[in-house]
Amino acid sequence: MNESRIRRVLDKMQQQGLDTLFISDNQSICYLTDIMVHPGERLWALCLRSSGEHIFFANRLFGEIRADAPVVSMDDTDDIVSIVAEHLRESKFMGVDKVLAARWLLPLMEKNPACRYVLGSDCVDDVRACKDEEEKALMREASRINDACIVLLTEKLHEGITEKQAAALLDEIYAQHGVTTSFDSNISFGPNGADPHHVCDDTPLRSGDPIVIDVGCRYQGYCADMTRTYFYQSATPENIEVYNTVLRANLAAEKLVRDGELLCNIDGCARGIIAEKGYGEYFTHRLGHFIGREVHEKGDVSAAYKTPARSGNVFSIEPGVYLPGKFGVRIEDLVIVTEDGCEILNHVSKELTILK
Amino acid sequence: MNESRIRRVLDKMQQQGLDTLFISDNQSICYLTDIMVHPGERLWALCLRSSGEHIFFANRLFGEIRADAPVVSMDDTDDIVSIVAEHLRESKFMGVDKVLAARWLLPLMEKNPACRYVLGSDCVDDVRACKDEEEKALMREASRINDACIVLLTEKLHEGITEKQAAALLDEIYAQHGVTTSFDSNISFGPNGADPHHVCDDTPLRSGDPIVIDVGCRYQGYCADMTRTYFYQSATPENIEVYNTVLRANLAAEKLVRDGELLCNIDGCARGIIAEKGYGEYFTHRLGHFIGREVHEKGDVSAAYKTPARSGNVFSIEPGVYLPGKFGVRIEDLVIVTEDGCEILNHVSKELTILK
Repeated sequence: MNESRIRRVLDKMQQQGLDTLFISDNQSICYLTDIMVHPGERLWALCLRSSGEHIFFANRLFGEIRADAPVVSMDDTDDIVSIVAEHLRESKFMGVDKVLAARWLLPLMEKNPACRYVLGSDCVDDVRACKDEEEKALMREASRINDACIVLLTEKLHEGITEKQAAALLDEIYAQHGVTTSFDSNISFGPNGADPHHVCDDTPLRSGDPIVIDVGCRYQGYCADMTRTYFYQSATPENIEVYNTVLRANLAAEKLVRDGELLCNIDGCARGIIAEKGYGEYFTHRLGHFIGREVHEKGDVSAAYKTPARSGNVFSIEPGVYLPGKFGVRIEDLVIVTEDGCEILNHVSKELTILK
Repeated sequence: MNESRIRRVLDKMQQQGLDTLFISDNQSICYLTDIMVHPGERLWALCLRSSGEHIFFANRLFGEIRADAPVVSMDDTDDIVSIVAEHLRESKFMGVDKVLAARWLLPLMEKNPACRYVLGSDCVDDVRACKDEEEKALMREASRINDACIVLLTEKLHEGITEKQAAALLDEIYAQHGVTTSFDSNISFGPNGADPHHVCDDTPLRSGDPIVIDVGCRYQGYCADMTRTYFYQSATPENIEVYNTVLRANLAAEKLVRDGELLCNIDGCARGIIAEKGYGEYFTHRLGHFIGREVHEKGDVSAAYKTPARSGNVFSIEPGVYLPGKFGVRIEDLVIVTEDGCEILNHVSKELTILK
């Protein structure tokens, strides 16, 4: 058990008056205990209690769980919810995390109806959002490796290579660096880049194509995520205008990041620059997302988050412009928020680059 | 929209008195509408209503949704739950599916407190569990391809190949057959086979190793899943005794399958044969699981399911014996339940085979 992290979560629970926090997110459990289980559809949970009597719920198929707190191990043929409800019958005000499936939540509410249930994810998520020094070091290393791999990939692109082949090439490069992808690689050639969620297909690289490379690796449990946009052999004046606009938005937003700055303002800064050039309607997504053990963690850099960035937060800054049927440009770095600015984790050049 | 499937779900809703069914499982939505979305943490839902006024909830980032029912498209910055609650304010008795995350369920319950909420997955899952002719044809083809690929794989195993290398080889064979894995391949050499959930590692194949190969491909959205156990170059008397015991359990259970037979009895039949030989405590999992669009669908062949198998059900029959530190044997087929028996989808030989 990671006592200092658990202590911070218990403090958050106390602020909300929760006596129990039902955590079923395996990444959150691993963050707090160093125990990783992949439960599939089975129940795997850690209940933190203000009494200090924490308890795990597991399935015997997970194997032996070595923990500093009691582990209730069940079989698929057990009446699992009844057993859990019995152990939690003293709970009066329970936070449950946002990923808890209705298959567990609804019957638990039915069996312990006197308890009040609320979303309690923030108690863990807000702690997870402020990375400690160990985590920052892992995120720096993940991005350092990612940077090196994206450079190797760009050196190997050639006319006719397909998006899928480029993604497979990156898989090989990652494997040579001892890492795996943290999400499906998004490599888009030509008009495919106009869809920010394009899935790699058999489109071949052709002269004049813009190339959007949005990829990340996972290093010791922590995720990298970066995007660069290149042009293959030539670029049009429109390509260049859009590129420069997105780059200015990226740089200005990164310059604004510091402890205390509102996340919505950082988003607004980038959005304003893009809108001023007439591309506002073509920047169709949030500016960034929090990241760490998962590629998308709680917290957005968007108009919806009127809360301040805090030291130790790690998020992406990824403005984009997507011209349907034509092309797209996105430039993304990860940043760690500091007292007076931010540390940018990606160092691959953002200068407009025409690949040969 | 697949009207006949939706009609069957509406009939189930009527039996339970539900006026609304909130479906967030993307496989279930695809089953009912042929629309596949990978929503990540965003809301993607189809609400079926007894009034016939079905409605989708989507995010603009999913792109255009072409459907025969209204689609409410939202942005990340919208107050999504309030919008959903407003659309569903007439609901009095709502089924929600088992995978609906607490992040949506709890605030929805708070905003529409007059509505009663229950687990309603069975309305869809029980319809999905009876495959129609189109689905049966796809499952036959998925298993036919899987059979062919496992045979090709066994021909290429050689001393020193590692489990990971064997899994990569299978990936290539699948790719040559135009399919992908439906789950992480589980290929275990020697004592690794004693863990039914072993993850492929760098263990090399050695003479005398038992080999457990539990693999499946996905064909046009439908999953295969089979297990064979081989012996490399030699087998011990204990290997052979365990193999023959597991094989008898597999054959006897498959012989028992027919429309109307209780799932728990099918499990009990295999379990009894294994227990009689003194290996009862080493058969540590359910006999089988339902399968279709997902590798594990609702329904187990286990003591927990005292309900009858029904024509069109597709499930695995996979008895196993796991001797800790020594070896494991598992033999698995998929079967389609018929009126008077079952159709076995796997045709790879189950005779005790010593690979050279």
